[in-house]
Amino acid sequence: MNFSSDNVTGAHPKIVAALAEAAAAGPMPAYGADPLTEALTKRLCEVFEREVAVYPVATGTAANALALSALTPPWGGVLAGAEAHVEVDECGAVEAMTGARIMAVPAPDGKLTPAALAARIAPLRKGDQHQVQPAVVSITQASECGTVYAPAEIAAIAAFCRTESLHLHMDGARFANAVASLGCTPAEVTWKAGVEALSFGATKNGALAAEAVIFFDPASAENFLFRRKRAGHLFSKMRFLSAQLLAYLDDDLWLKNAAHANEAARHLALGLIDLPGVDLDHPVDGNELFVRLPLAIADRLLRAGYHFYPWGAPPADPASEAGLYRFVTAFDTDLASIDALLAAALPPAAENT
Amino acid sequence: MNFSSDNVTGAHPKIVAALAEAAAAGPMPAYGADPLTEALTKRLCEVFEREVAVYPVATGTAANALALSALTPPWGGVLAGAEAHVEVDECGAVEAMTGARIMAVPAPDGKLTPAALAARIAPLRKGDQHQVQPAVVSITQASECGTVYAPAEIAAIAAFCRTESLHLHMDGARFANAVASLGCTPAEVTWKAGVEALSFGATKNGALAAEAVIFFDPASAENFLFRRKRAGHLFSKMRFLSAQLLAYLDDDLWLKNAAHANEAARHLALGLIDLPGVDLDHPVDGNELFVRLPLAIADRLLRAGYHFYPWGAPPADPASEAGLYRFVTAFDTDLASIDALLAAALPPAAENT
Amino acid sequence: MNFSSDNVTGAHPKIVAALAEAAAAGPMPAYGADPLTEALTKRLCEVFEREVAVYPVATGTAANALALSALTPPWGGVLAGAEAHVEVDECGAVEAMTGARIMAVPAPDGKLTPAALAARIAPLRKGDQHQVQPAVVSITQASECGTVYAPAEIAAIAAFCRTESLHLHMDGARFANAVASLGCTPAEVTWKAGVEALSFGATKNGALAAEAVIFFDPASAENFLFRRKRAGHLFSKMRFLSAQLLAYLDDDLWLKNAAHANEAARHLALGLIDLPGVDLDHPVDGNELFVRLPLAIADRLLRAGYHFYPWGAPPADPASEAGLYRFVTAFDTDLASIDALLAAALPPAAENT
Amino acid sequence: MNFSSDNVTGAHPKIVAALAEAAAAGPMPAYGADPLTEALTKRLCEVFEREVAVYPVATGTAANALALSALTPPWGGVLAGAEAHVEVDECGAVEAMTGARIMAVPAPDGKLTPAALAARIAPLRKGDQHQVQPAVVSITQASECGTVYAPAEIAAIAAFCRTESLHLHMDGARFANAVASLGCTPAEVTWKAGVEALSFGATKNGALAAEAVIFFDPASAENFLFRRKRAGHLFSKMRFLSAQLLAYLDDDLWLKNAAHANEAARHLALGLIDLPGVDLDHPVDGNELFVRLPLAIADRLLRAGYHFYPWGAPPADPASEAGLYRFVTAFDTDLASIDALLAAALPPAAENT
Repeated sequence: MNFSSDNVTGAHPKIVAALAEAAAAGPMPAYGADPLTEALTKRLCEVFEREVAVYPVATGTAANALALSALTPPWGGVLAGAEAHVEVDECGAVEAMTGARIMAVPAPDGKLTPAALAARIAPLRKGDQHQVQPAVVSITQASECGTVYAPAEIAAIAAFCRTESLHLHMDGARFANAVASLGCTPAEVTWKAGVEALSFGATKNGALAAEAVIFFDPASAENFLFRRKRAGHLFSKMRFLSAQLLAYLDDDLWLKNAAHANEAARHLALGLIDLPGVDLDHPVDGNELFVRLPLAIADRLLRAGYHFYPWGAPPADPASEAGLYRFVTAFDTDLASIDALLAAALPPAAENT
Repeated sequence: MNFSSDNVTGAHPKIVAALAEAAAAGPMPAYGADPLTEALTKRLCEVFEREVAVYPVATGTAANALALSALTPPWGGVLAGAEAHVEVDECGAVEAMTGARIMAVPAPDGKLTPAALAARIAPLRKGDQHQVQPAVVSITQASECGTVYAPAEIAAIAAFCRTESLHLHMDGARFANAVASLGCTPAEVTWKAGVEALSFGATKNGALAAEAVIFFDPASAENFLFRRKRAGHLFSKMRFLSAQLLAYLDDDLWLKNAAHANEAARHLALGLIDLPGVDLDHPVDGNELFVRLPLAIADRLLRAGYHFYPWGAPPADPASEAGLYRFVTAFDTDLASIDALLAAALPPAAENT
Repeated sequence: MNFSSDNVTGAHPKIVAALAEAAAAGPMPAYGADPLTEALTKRLCEVFEREVAVYPVATGTAANALALSALTPPWGGVLAGAEAHVEVDECGAVEAMTGARIMAVPAPDGKLTPAALAARIAPLRKGDQHQVQPAVVSITQASECGTVYAPAEIAAIAAFCRTESLHLHMDGARFANAVASLGCTPAEVTWKAGVEALSFGATKNGALAAEAVIFFDPASAENFLFRRKRAGHLFSKMRFLSAQLLAYLDDDLWLKNAAHANEAARHLALGLIDLPGVDLDHPVDGNELFVRLPLAIADRLLRAGYHFYPWGAPPADPASEAGLYRFVTAFDTDLASIDALLAAALPPAAENT
Repeated sequence: MNFSSDNVTGAHPKIVAALAEAAAAGPMPAYGADPLTEALTKRLCEVFEREVAVYPVATGTAANALALSALTPPWGGVLAGAEAHVEVDECGAVEAMTGARIMAVPAPDGKLTPAALAARIAPLRKGDQHQVQPAVVSITQASECGTVYAPAEIAAIAAFCRTESLHLHMDGARFANAVASLGCTPAEVTWKAGVEALSFGATKNGALAAEAVIFFDPASAENFLFRRKRAGHLFSKMRFLSAQLLAYLDDDLWLKNAAHANEAARHLALGLIDLPGVDLDHPVDGNELFVRLPLAIADRLLRAGYHFYPWGAPPADPASEAGLYRFVTAFDTDLASIDALLAAALPPAAENT
């Protein structure tokens, strides 16, 4: 079984079926003028309980970089967690598309706080022509540490943003996992809490390749069409992005998939933590676990064919007998396979006697 | 029937089936380390009869802009036909990703020539720090006028490029149509004729969204991974691009699809040209027709529900009784529908008497 | 004597004296907070008879590219004459600083017209996400052909701009020559005629290196400080740009210098045109002449040590006995030297008999 | 007296005289083809005891950003001290001109070390397409903390750079102060220690506005002409940058100016440190002091009309009775004025009794 990431998965059969149906539906206008894209926007307005502007793209990196390009001038700063995907894993895409600078902020458990943001910008001089000017905060929901912001935590950040004239963006590559975990509405954890733009992810949670940039104030997105096209992210056969996203939303598939992945993660976490010497680095709110494992356990699992990543810097002490590892569950994780993993983690019976 | 573009089509069932199969294939490494992507590279090496470097992306604009970014410095010039897609239809994507300037060159019938290129660069001063320096020629095969370069025509351009130290790129959004039309090998019309990088298109010819940037000298592409990721064009579930392209190549589906579209175009052209007052603006080598139609005919067709675009500027003379129109056929064009169209173009019987 | 360009000149003694005075004036706040820069803004408000925002920079290319960066989005088009400095002589600086595309427009005698602009944008689709969107017109005053726009000509362009929602920029590298030639006020030929931003040049007309970007609506320049600094064009010892510009404006030195250069050009033009076989390619409104000379005359002048450039493409007919040449006069051109030149242009007496 | 920065100064009379002489020298070829620029390159080859490529520009920010643009790809990282000018004071100019990301590295006393650099890049994955790739180290000599790297310290960094395939750039805005402080040759502290490119500053040390980008391997600078022009940093009357730099180098004026400023700083430091409650934050190697002063002393000095900046964050404890301040001396600092300052720092005699 493969716990290395949620992007090693295939796709959910319902989404594949929707693609196939769209493929056989005959001619449709290109570039987003098709009925599926229109339906998608309507559907997302319902999901978010307000008028929204929707721009489907194929990758999360594109969604983030393009969304942020609408929220910062080239001389702006993007405040993001030190482990944020935009900082660590996108090869400078945000800088390339915005011109702006990412300003990494310490984020214990992967979550920014008003205090941490305030400390980061304190030494900067607002309006001073010599300095990059903080322009937007980007939070990741669920975070890169597998935790989830409560609506009140986001609202507190949004209040800080208003005070400091900063925009607020949410990288929702695992947005479904967060919503499923919180049990709140999508609106409560986004615009009602002060989020202005959302990278709404589907790829990791059952789609083949589909994300949407969502602006909660459509007026703020007036030039976004040009930004997307100019970056090569406008699909000619847009129906194929929209079909994925419609199937993803249909009958709450997105939340069901995420709830399943979250449940699998919780199950795995509870099982692992029962083992001697095992510890969690962060709360397990979504579908990611960061686990300190005795090397003997890690070794047994790897030899048994389980896939998962060692995480962060290797232990400073080479004699250390434990390491940090990341496990990620997904919409298609077999719960039974987790029990098998937990069994495989145990020392062989012979050693027990 | 819809003749407005080949991107109003759905997708070929075999490609959809390949996607479905890939979706159900269980976990695979992400970001291009999967077996399908490996197989794709191998397959394209066979198709092009040499080692090539292959980078799948989802849109033709991305393929062109990224390929060109590897072939020009920011102070370079991209010589392209005045009607080239990179000049007319990509909202400045090439400029955004390269920093370079597109230098439009008159291209009768959509095809560049060494003479036209020479005339365009003649006033420029090579090596002069004040001037954008021509760096790369981009030709479109099949061209935006529905014509096709013969290998010898490309070789002549390549010879010019060598003389002037220019790279040579091919926008092959309709590459299959060109190869099917020429009856040559893919190698003969690319690297054997001097092309260094190819935007290999599949979307318009049966895929959902799949293109590949192909470098014929893999060494010249060493940093391309960074370029693609930084632009947000790296798919995490790369298998879904590769699966489309593999199915596209499998059993020559790409050439069969293209041959069908070309045949449909030829059939349509021959039928139309038989009508009084109808003229072709360019030879019909591929799957696009540019036709001057008496307004009465155009009107009848539009009222009969056929879709096609008026093209270029409206007639200067408002009393003109003809206009220019574009018709595009595709892999799924029903040949019978063309006969129906031709019948609908005729004046009603009553008028004939 | 050197007629190759007005930038081969040294600097006017009064401007040098002002620099020396500023250099000895003791400590002053850096980065534009000094009293000279404050005085400069005040002075330019008087010169232009309204409140203006003033940003000194050292080069004309910087002035143009930065001014335009405030007037176009990255997906915008900059409409400029086919021979405009921004198009021909700035190595893509405008593209580099704006992201935008320069759209060259035929400009006979170096001057744009509403008709030529309208023809250029006619094929473009406004608001279409696939296309670079025309955003700003840049006119050069005096033009690269040595001609000058009358206020009414500019007003006509400005009216076109308003109709098409385009901004209007003036490259005034030789603005003084134009004002001196027209005998109008600086206001009449700029904001009163509809110009929004001006690259106000001094380098070619007696300064060492000093230009100013001037916005006639200061509100539109609110972020310009960041643009300038981010491009490396903010002087720490700004006093040295401002001192040059103050001396340049003081006692109308700028207009006197320009009037002298214009007079020298006129004198030279009148003298040359009297010679057999000599023709002017454009009216001589300012300090540049584009002259068709019999090769024998050109030869005699070159052998006599006069410097001037052959211009444009060499004659198509190699047997041609005339060529096109550019002569540029300047603030320090010795009128007597022009008479000497005219004498040297004549065939030797022996040949006359 | 003004100790707020070395850029509040005017200019050295010899440099002004050289400018005046160049201004009166009659016509010279533009854009760097003049004899002064040629002489400058020759002179700098002598100063650095090897062939170098020299590109004068007017600002330090331009010199840094342009130099670095030749040393990193857009997906590269620029490793610089957390207080480096490129990071703190250039409004993102390096990012704008390179596309790259600045990676701030803790630099106690303003100096990078191989250990600190190694720690910064340790978590990064070399060659991984997801990550910005460290490409160049930029050190500041003298540093932003007023300290100076010894040649051996630079050599150690250069050795690290070679191991990690990084380029090495030196921001020498105060290079003269460093060389004067070390008493070594310019070569020893640059290319002999492994530096590849130098931003050679003159503005802060007596010039009006003049810096030079120097490449120690001229071959590596082959495209620099285009980079400079494209950024608007090519002077048409280049003679005026070269004349400043020639006068600056002539008769070792640069080193004399710097030695004077350094001596003034040392004198000021020794005097201040004798006062009760005064402390230095960093060694005073060059012309900058970072001093912790009792608020009473700071207050007396400010009221006596001395200019200097409070530095860094205000004291965390509002009841604190000391603060951090920066004093900068310059080529024209009057040593007597320092004695006056020290006297003014003392409590009034009445308070002493």
